[in-house]
Amino acid sequence: MEIRIHDAIDLAERTLTRYGMRARYARMTAEHLVDAALCGHEFASLPRLLAIVEELRRKPPAGEAHVVRENERSAVIDGGDNVAYAVSVIAVDKAIELARKSGIAVVGVRNTWFSGRLAYYVERAARQGFVAMHTTNTTARVAPYGGIDRLFGTNPFAIAFPANDEPLVVDFGTAATTWGETILRKNKGELLPDGVAVDAQGSPTRDPDAALAGAFLPWGGHRGYAMSLVIQLLALLAGSEPVVKESGKFGLFFLAFDPGLLMPADQYKARVTELRQIIKATRPAPGAGQVRVPGDASLRKRKENTAAGVIRVDDRIYSRILALLDSR
Amino acid sequence: MEIRIHDAIDLAERTLTRYGMRARYARMTAEHLVDAALCGHEFASLPRLLAIVEELRRKPPAGEAHVVRENERSAVIDGGDNVAYAVSVIAVDKAIELARKSGIAVVGVRNTWFSGRLAYYVERAARQGFVAMHTTNTTARVAPYGGIDRLFGTNPFAIAFPANDEPLVVDFGTAATTWGETILRKNKGELLPDGVAVDAQGSPTRDPDAALAGAFLPWGGHRGYAMSLVIQLLALLAGSEPVVKESGKFGLFFLAFDPGLLMPADQYKARVTELRQIIKATRPAPGAGQVRVPGDASLRKRKENTAAGVIRVDDRIYSRILALLDSR
Repeated sequence: MEIRIHDAIDLAERTLTRYGMRARYARMTAEHLVDAALCGHEFASLPRLLAIVEELRRKPPAGEAHVVRENERSAVIDGGDNVAYAVSVIAVDKAIELARKSGIAVVGVRNTWFSGRLAYYVERAARQGFVAMHTTNTTARVAPYGGIDRLFGTNPFAIAFPANDEPLVVDFGTAATTWGETILRKNKGELLPDGVAVDAQGSPTRDPDAALAGAFLPWGGHRGYAMSLVIQLLALLAGSEPVVKESGKFGLFFLAFDPGLLMPADQYKARVTELRQIIKATRPAPGAGQVRVPGDASLRKRKENTAAGVIRVDDRIYSRILALLDSR
Repeated sequence: MEIRIHDAIDLAERTLTRYGMRARYARMTAEHLVDAALCGHEFASLPRLLAIVEELRRKPPAGEAHVVRENERSAVIDGGDNVAYAVSVIAVDKAIELARKSGIAVVGVRNTWFSGRLAYYVERAARQGFVAMHTTNTTARVAPYGGIDRLFGTNPFAIAFPANDEPLVVDFGTAATTWGETILRKNKGELLPDGVAVDAQGSPTRDPDAALAGAFLPWGGHRGYAMSLVIQLLALLAGSEPVVKESGKFGLFFLAFDPGLLMPADQYKARVTELRQIIKATRPAPGAGQVRVPGDASLRKRKENTAAGVIRVDDRIYSRILALLDSR
């Protein structure tokens, strides 16, 4: 079915507050979830409400997210055991505030759980003129290259650059598969692709259940492993345990800086737009379509869907959300 | 043959000054080249002298590298058309100086050519207690994912973290192959692996000559492409052209920050060492050896070779270096 954008945000917000989330955090989370649908990431949208509510029911009431220490160029935030959809907005806004003052800042965040698309937070900073990088580790599910034990999360990396047109946003995970994708295959009775997971004994497997009991592999061999390790090391800096066995013990890292530190900001934005145009005008591989710029498909879908004024939601998901609202 | 470490540094330094390099820059470059041999990277060591000298002969005398603009948290350096082996040491030392003062700093560098192992510069910062990241673009040889035109360099990425024992150093390129590797295969009459390059018409090729006339592919599909693009965008910030057609038009980016901004620095170093030990103690894949930590093999070889006091140099390379010293 289709829901109007404002109704979808309102629905998500009401559901979250009904289960004890503070109004302000519920609003931030709802906006993020609906934006994911606008950008074409349906799995990252309203279906996540169900998982978030499940977590809210299990947890004691959360405190306020708060700044633990701060100077002009850095801050450490304790998320107060609130959902990272909200805490990460607070964190990136703090990074922006400090970078506006000092030109550059880092922010570390701990005591939070469940984030969304990392692109969402860095794009927010790029729209205000900053280059912003954000990484987080997640529950240990990924083995190091050459290993079979779960040490790292699926550890996503995101960075956004301001441009004359739309920000250029890069956002990718560093594991060969994701928890969501594996669950999806399991539910559909499908096998995983080759080379993305091992079972508990360390033998390659395509069985989703065996992969969930074993470990995912890093994407891209030893270089993807190195990238995953970098994100784990940045997470340590934000207070993560070396290996994260349970949700909520992650470390979120944010960096924001003004490109004006190194060249006139307007000139830089023009350069980013110029490179984007060069990429789109370059020759595609034989038989392939136009070469893509990372993040641009999401931006285009958001524009189309916002113009249409609606998002699509799976009927069964919608019914389950309504049931949640009734059952409390 | 084997040469004693100090003799090798002296030989490289004399060769470079003989061809007009300033003594200070020649010393920096010589130390880097010999360190590469100590770390087991023979191709990145004294053989590079030949290419550097060729470039020195072609170029007009260089000026001094100098700071173009600077504030407490950033600097822009004009390399004065000097070799990046030297200019990058100056740049990372500037980043360290500023980060010591302000906690965090970025440095952009332009007008320089030929760098070495990026690990060398970031390790230097990590030994002084800083987390340091360094990227550079290089001459355009790599197509975007889905494309066939040369837009990006082989764009390496490096980052180092201070630890209680040795710094943990990550350093990798974002192309499926390198210029050096392709030249080596060409000279040996060998084919390239599958899937690393296309010819000028965009068809997959394993022929080194066709690959050099065409384009390399990014490593790791769309994610490696995204990473390569990130490095290109950071290079723009340091003054690079969007697409670099000739050596010397690159943009080098450096970031350094004190981990003490986010947690007590000693505690962080202990955590990095703890994670390194966890990785080394983790179960390897069936039939594989101990799981490796990126950069650790280089550190181990440097220790062994430094204890032995010598580096190995190919006899023919050594003769050619001596001939360069005579022929001037």
